[in-house]
Amino acid sequence: MRLPVDADRLRADIEANAAFGRVETDDPEAHGRTNRTGTEANRKARDHLVERLRDAGLDVTVDAVGNVAGRWVPNGADPDAAPVAAGSHLDSVPDGGIFDGPLGVYAAVEAVRAMRDAGIEPDRPVLVSSFTEEEGSTFGDGLLGSSVATGETDAETALALENDAGETLANALSRIGYRGEGLLDPAGWDCFFELHVEQDTVLESAGVDVGVVTTITGITHCVVEIMGEANHAGATAMDDRTDALAAASEFVLDVESAANDIVETDSETAVGTVGSLSVSPNATNVVPGRVACGVDVRDVTRGSMEEIASAAHESLARLERNRGVETTLNRPFHVDPTGMSDRLRTVAHDAAADAGRSAIDLHSGAAHDAMRVAGATDAALLFAPSRDGVSHNPREWTDWADCAAATEVLAGALAEMAGAAGATGTEAGTT
Amino acid sequence: MRLPVDADRLRADIEANAAFGRVETDDPEAHGRTNRTGTEANRKARDHLVERLRDAGLDVTVDAVGNVAGRWVPNGADPDAAPVAAGSHLDSVPDGGIFDGPLGVYAAVEAVRAMRDAGIEPDRPVLVSSFTEEEGSTFGDGLLGSSVATGETDAETALALENDAGETLANALSRIGYRGEGLLDPAGWDCFFELHVEQDTVLESAGVDVGVVTTITGITHCVVEIMGEANHAGATAMDDRTDALAAASEFVLDVESAANDIVETDSETAVGTVGSLSVSPNATNVVPGRVACGVDVRDVTRGSMEEIASAAHESLARLERNRGVETTLNRPFHVDPTGMSDRLRTVAHDAAADAGRSAIDLHSGAAHDAMRVAGATDAALLFAPSRDGVSHNPREWTDWADCAAATEVLAGALAEMAGAAGATGTEAGTT
Repeated sequence: MRLPVDADRLRADIEANAAFGRVETDDPEAHGRTNRTGTEANRKARDHLVERLRDAGLDVTVDAVGNVAGRWVPNGADPDAAPVAAGSHLDSVPDGGIFDGPLGVYAAVEAVRAMRDAGIEPDRPVLVSSFTEEEGSTFGDGLLGSSVATGETDAETALALENDAGETLANALSRIGYRGEGLLDPAGWDCFFELHVEQDTVLESAGVDVGVVTTITGITHCVVEIMGEANHAGATAMDDRTDALAAASEFVLDVESAANDIVETDSETAVGTVGSLSVSPNATNVVPGRVACGVDVRDVTRGSMEEIASAAHESLARLERNRGVETTLNRPFHVDPTGMSDRLRTVAHDAAADAGRSAIDLHSGAAHDAMRVAGATDAALLFAPSRDGVSHNPREWTDWADCAAATEVLAGALAEMAGAAGATGTEAGTT
Repeated sequence: MRLPVDADRLRADIEANAAFGRVETDDPEAHGRTNRTGTEANRKARDHLVERLRDAGLDVTVDAVGNVAGRWVPNGADPDAAPVAAGSHLDSVPDGGIFDGPLGVYAAVEAVRAMRDAGIEPDRPVLVSSFTEEEGSTFGDGLLGSSVATGETDAETALALENDAGETLANALSRIGYRGEGLLDPAGWDCFFELHVEQDTVLESAGVDVGVVTTITGITHCVVEIMGEANHAGATAMDDRTDALAAASEFVLDVESAANDIVETDSETAVGTVGSLSVSPNATNVVPGRVACGVDVRDVTRGSMEEIASAAHESLARLERNRGVETTLNRPFHVDPTGMSDRLRTVAHDAAADAGRSAIDLHSGAAHDAMRVAGATDAALLFAPSRDGVSHNPREWTDWADCAAATEVLAGALAEMAGAAGATGTEAGTT
């Protein structure tokens, strides 16, 4: 179904939210925001959301880890029916953008407002959620609120996590007035939609309005250590060296090659990155003795991820033989690829068609709360175009018209899933 | 000529000096020492040297930058004749070894004592020097005292250098009682010998007692920056990346290859090292946007150093073309190779032969005070074997017998240069 949204109202919400933790700059292209969990900026962003939810007629609850939910029970709806839900997160990375997270939260608020404005009274309650600490910039590894809500992480464990100042999440939430009770329960939801900025250039390149995610890639992180022998860079002849950085350089290129090979042959969505690398003792005049590096491997199938991981293992074995280094590889973090709900994807494509918006299937290389929710109920992830694919950066941008177009698709899909039978009648009269 | 030395007396001095700043450890192979300029350990080491110089009958002076000198005017010698000099330094790197520096200082003291014990009264005064801040671990870039004494660095500039705590060298020297007046003047010396541990394995591998350095390598430091584009490691497809670390990895391997090529074809003493490398933002899940690295290039000829530097430039140009990165290369530090005195090298080889010690020519890949003194007068650099080539490390070790053998060669050469005509007569009676 089609459900018109108010683009200006959506923009006003996102711009108001952008002020909480705004990073001032002279660059007219930059719209930076630092909104870390438990800060004053975070409290203000949450307060503003609560106010906007109440203005839209939703009942607000806050759970034990600070997840905020607004619930609308339409007239005639069964209040005990499993609600249809949509949302995302309000926290940001340091110096991040203004759309990553807030677009999905305020698009969900706007979807409810659009239904109400259109006089639609769906059969099921509608729930808007904002999950705590999606970015993992302040407490833990990210997806925290959705991980606790879906039982992936224990609430007590999450509440005991500490920020850099040694303050627990429990205390930080209490301090800003967002330590509630109970837990959001996605297992009791009929379905969940998350709208997010793409953070890549697929939609921009294709000139398409909305992306419908098929699969959120799996992620493996490897921690690699390469031990050579630190020595005087002047007094140690070239053939007497066991240079850990030269060995690590081969490793970095081997990981890149392995990912490129798989992109060319098996799976064009595969990526392999050595994102971090630290050298010891790291002095210009000392042959490097030890290198530690962090590898990130992702793809939509477990098989191609394992191929890259195997190539990393083989690279290290070859470096041990050829360069005399010692190496270790650990995998402290792994999640398998997560498929999105076929049922919801179909509804999303239908909503896009009804709204006259173009949509394509794509995968998500980034993790999102929808990945955790998919473990509890049917979940869908929709993308709006990102200019130049830039994200986690003040230059992150999505045109306001693109925000509204994607929100219209979200609203249509949500209304459809909520059983808004009467909506078709409204369609003709509102745009 | 041959001049026997007292191995136990030499060892006692080096062991006494090793206590100043000793690094305690459970490793029986480790003899660590942290003796930084201006510390209490440094004051004690200097006090002990002054005492030992006076015990040996030398007049002690301290110059404006804390260089310590002991001067012996033999009976019948012309006090105004240019003295023959020998010495090294007492400061260490943090957690360094006990021989790097102190061996050369106390070997020079022992050489004077050996002459006096043998009843030799040479024609020229003999001077023992201990230069301030050779390592550059605390103030400036190293070779500081010898650079000031030879006019390479201005005394006021040196005295204004600050340690990590913001204290100037002037204040630090005053505080420990070693800010004297005037300056040591190597230009007024007849010659200078420095005995040092090799810090490499040439002597150990060859089973030779003493190394006679032909040339101290030149040193060029390059600071390289490689700018790519930081991006999400999951959401950025392999062919959309400008990965600064992958580019830097090629650069590291190119520098290594260039040095290896020159070792095989032109100059086996050439070395090229990327010793330091820093990645930004350095997060496992972010494609690296920027890498800075430090390159150290050394050889005994300027030509081969320039070949490696050219290869570094070419590597960066190729990376700009092939990977779309931007790069910069600066050379903040360069010294040309420094030849040691042929006259003194011949005397050293003769002294080794007279003492029944084996000696070979080799180069020094590390910088030493003798490099600066060579700009003012004839200079020689002798090496004693280093176990496993280890240095700047508590596991640095030179057997006491090797210390004594090298000291005997130093003493013979110094006596010869001082004009100890009567020494040949002593030779038969003392060992």
